[in-house]
Amino acid sequence: MKAKKFIDLNCDMGESFGSWNMGNDAEIMPYVSSVNISCGFHAGDPNIMMKTIDLAIQHSVNIGAHPGYPDLAGFGRRHMYLTPNEVYAAVLYQIGALAAIARARGTELHHVKPHGALYNLAAKDRVYAEAIADAIYAFDSSLILYGLSGSELTRAGKEKGLSVFHEVFADRSYQADASLTPRTEPNAILKTPEEAVDQIFRILQTGEVITCSGDAIPIEADSICIHGDHEGAAEFAKQIFQQLTDFDISIR
Amino acid sequence: MKAKKFIDLNCDMGESFGSWNMGNDAEIMPYVSSVNISCGFHAGDPNIMMKTIDLAIQHSVNIGAHPGYPDLAGFGRRHMYLTPNEVYAAVLYQIGALAAIARARGTELHHVKPHGALYNLAAKDRVYAEAIADAIYAFDSSLILYGLSGSELTRAGKEKGLSVFHEVFADRSYQADASLTPRTEPNAILKTPEEAVDQIFRILQTGEVITCSGDAIPIEADSICIHGDHEGAAEFAKQIFQQLTDFDISIR
Amino acid sequence: MKAKKFIDLNCDMGESFGSWNMGNDAEIMPYVSSVNISCGFHAGDPNIMMKTIDLAIQHSVNIGAHPGYPDLAGFGRRHMYLTPNEVYAAVLYQIGALAAIARARGTELHHVKPHGALYNLAAKDRVYAEAIADAIYAFDSSLILYGLSGSELTRAGKEKGLSVFHEVFADRSYQADASLTPRTEPNAILKTPEEAVDQIFRILQTGEVITCSGDAIPIEADSICIHGDHEGAAEFAKQIFQQLTDFDISIR
Amino acid sequence: MKAKKFIDLNCDMGESFGSWNMGNDAEIMPYVSSVNISCGFHAGDPNIMMKTIDLAIQHSVNIGAHPGYPDLAGFGRRHMYLTPNEVYAAVLYQIGALAAIARARGTELHHVKPHGALYNLAAKDRVYAEAIADAIYAFDSSLILYGLSGSELTRAGKEKGLSVFHEVFADRSYQADASLTPRTEPNAILKTPEEAVDQIFRILQTGEVITCSGDAIPIEADSICIHGDHEGAAEFAKQIFQQLTDFDISIR
Repeated sequence: MKAKKFIDLNCDMGESFGSWNMGNDAEIMPYVSSVNISCGFHAGDPNIMMKTIDLAIQHSVNIGAHPGYPDLAGFGRRHMYLTPNEVYAAVLYQIGALAAIARARGTELHHVKPHGALYNLAAKDRVYAEAIADAIYAFDSSLILYGLSGSELTRAGKEKGLSVFHEVFADRSYQADASLTPRTEPNAILKTPEEAVDQIFRILQTGEVITCSGDAIPIEADSICIHGDHEGAAEFAKQIFQQLTDFDISIR
Repeated sequence: MKAKKFIDLNCDMGESFGSWNMGNDAEIMPYVSSVNISCGFHAGDPNIMMKTIDLAIQHSVNIGAHPGYPDLAGFGRRHMYLTPNEVYAAVLYQIGALAAIARARGTELHHVKPHGALYNLAAKDRVYAEAIADAIYAFDSSLILYGLSGSELTRAGKEKGLSVFHEVFADRSYQADASLTPRTEPNAILKTPEEAVDQIFRILQTGEVITCSGDAIPIEADSICIHGDHEGAAEFAKQIFQQLTDFDISIR
Repeated sequence: MKAKKFIDLNCDMGESFGSWNMGNDAEIMPYVSSVNISCGFHAGDPNIMMKTIDLAIQHSVNIGAHPGYPDLAGFGRRHMYLTPNEVYAAVLYQIGALAAIARARGTELHHVKPHGALYNLAAKDRVYAEAIADAIYAFDSSLILYGLSGSELTRAGKEKGLSVFHEVFADRSYQADASLTPRTEPNAILKTPEEAVDQIFRILQTGEVITCSGDAIPIEADSICIHGDHEGAAEFAKQIFQQLTDFDISIR
Repeated sequence: MKAKKFIDLNCDMGESFGSWNMGNDAEIMPYVSSVNISCGFHAGDPNIMMKTIDLAIQHSVNIGAHPGYPDLAGFGRRHMYLTPNEVYAAVLYQIGALAAIARARGTELHHVKPHGALYNLAAKDRVYAEAIADAIYAFDSSLILYGLSGSELTRAGKEKGLSVFHEVFADRSYQADASLTPRTEPNAILKTPEEAVDQIFRILQTGEVITCSGDAIPIEADSICIHGDHEGAAEFAKQIFQQLTDFDISIR
């Protein structure tokens, strides 16, 4: 594989709600090329969505919808047994809500990435992966679907006819089947920014990732997800951004 | 004034929520030309919105968004002190959500009519009327704004450049200033279908309505609102429809 | 086993929400001895809770809390991955809310019965069964726990030291392991009131129920659950009540 | 007036929700004698309520319920037109929910203080003040009602037969009628901790507060409210605590 010369850096944003703040959107925005904006079901509200869109416009960053389960109290991270049809309608609803606000601010959506427990379900369950791909396609077939690299979700998207971005994680460790180590495991999160940067460079240069068991497995990478909701998030984003730029890998 | 030869009949629909049913959508749909579909804030949810759109398509009825306050427990009928900017964003959000589902079903929105306490506020308060008109215009300047005949809302819509439908009520009594008698008053609701039909015919033939104090005042009428959430709603809708049709006034 | 001379008849009530009505509480109340009142998480709201308590007082019916998942849109029937600790706190919260309203109306709680997906989970999963039993015990160790006859929930309740009512269903069919046939199966619901009455009488007279596979298995019965949210619910409740009374089985 | 030798210091706590954090509860807890814990309507959830109660127990701090409007998105700071009866039921519900969790942790409630827009409404509107006082009395007539000093709420509480704590604000300026300067005014908040401490000492020593217009008016003070949701909140709490202690005014 030829080493990549450019990559997309994405981050979940607009995760505040009402009077509650979450994340460091303004600090991280300069270092990413795409943002996934919460749509009011697991986080975000109409005003926060508007502010986050304005911030993204200001930094010329691609705007994506980040639909999740209707579970504010659980931040969309608790799995709920919605039917595939409920997921289809809920995803359409959330994309439309964000798209309307984007349109009012003179811009439009670039992509869709499901959130949290819905993302994880769609990575493994073909039926739900299709429900999500169908909803995106029905709304706008030119939207890009972001999904876990090598997942059911990206496969369903491709077969549906959507453009797909395979997403890799800078700070999460990988299992032998290219799935993410669950957050409940002690080694789910890479311990240092250096390890995360190393993982990213290896992926970009070799097309492979080293799993928890020490093996190298192939992995596609169109976008790197960085997390914005922890203490050193902005510093970490800056570091990733600069090191990639130093190696002539452009963020776009 | 020349008597009207056609009129729009509209009804609020999709007011169920989750497992709870409200209204008689399927029974009333054949007799109306436009429906205002709840968008999930005061009633409705993504699945109900989809079913209601499908029902409207089946009957070739115009589909409108019916945005309301974020107050399920109060059905959007309790006033809440949102800021004009919060109203702007909330209206955009709700229109977008419904529009996305409509698009996925192969159709598009025809109009927007605010719901309940938001409708009443916008009838009297210019600032909120403009927030709503601005949101609609920003989303799609070809959407028609439905508002109380002679209200701040219809004025704001016109000045913004929107097409406006002046709405009159079949079964509500009117005050001297053309506002509706508040529901808290004993004579707010006309007692019999006959009275309601009489009121409608007078409005369509003379361009005037008789107020509670007995005076005739001019009133514009592009659409008649009928209510769908009471016992005899379907029967009443049918009666209005047939009597109008009998008098060669077409419903469209 | 000696045939039973008295039995408790319970029904879920207070399942309306805001402007939405569900059930036929006033019609069914005369025929039951206990009601399980929704506490605002999957159905009900403070005002409806108060009205339902007043109705129960009027008919001298035992009042129980009916805590569920925080999922109005799914009516508490969709499983959600709450942690046991979240369930513990959510159950305490809901019991307390209802108990406060009961106290204000001059009465107190008699029992607690979890709702929907939480009830089903607790029937099979010991950890969640204990979380619920612990919450009830911590609030008031004299409250009776209603659970599926022969389930983990009733076992956990007994071991905790709670009084337990084994609940059987008049209109649901049973599997070989005494679990209810899932609602997704075609034969989950008994087709006629006669079948339901037969099932109840057999249980009360022999202490056994006939499963879907035709075998008789032992089953304890302290209370019979009847459903209130379907068309003929009130008529069915009356029938059960009268036939039991005719056979000198008192409802209490 | 004799200078006070002891005073209650109270702070709103448990204002986080789900994954969103608000306030600095652990830092402020050592310096207050009472906390008002959100009950899930405008902030808080069952788990956060439990954690906050545990923290209060650890510091031997009095626990109060802090009921608010059912408006998470607006943090209970937007007025909503609930009926007095809806307020009565909502307050009962929230007190009961917190009381149940408190009981499960081996403690009980000490007081009730309404939150935000509900607090402000009850300060001026007798009907709502009575609805709140009635709810508290119906639940437990020994609970202390915290209300704005000299307000309709404290008057209604006294007449009902409740113990009442007149609350003053360290960092808010006062109008000629002893009401708080609305937050929308530029001089609503005292600019420095020194000004706030001065205001408190004057109130405790003279029984008077200097209003915005420069006049001294009498004011009762049983408790001082300090705010916990801003940057320097913990430092400010510590300062107030120490200066009061230095002057032999005990916090209790």
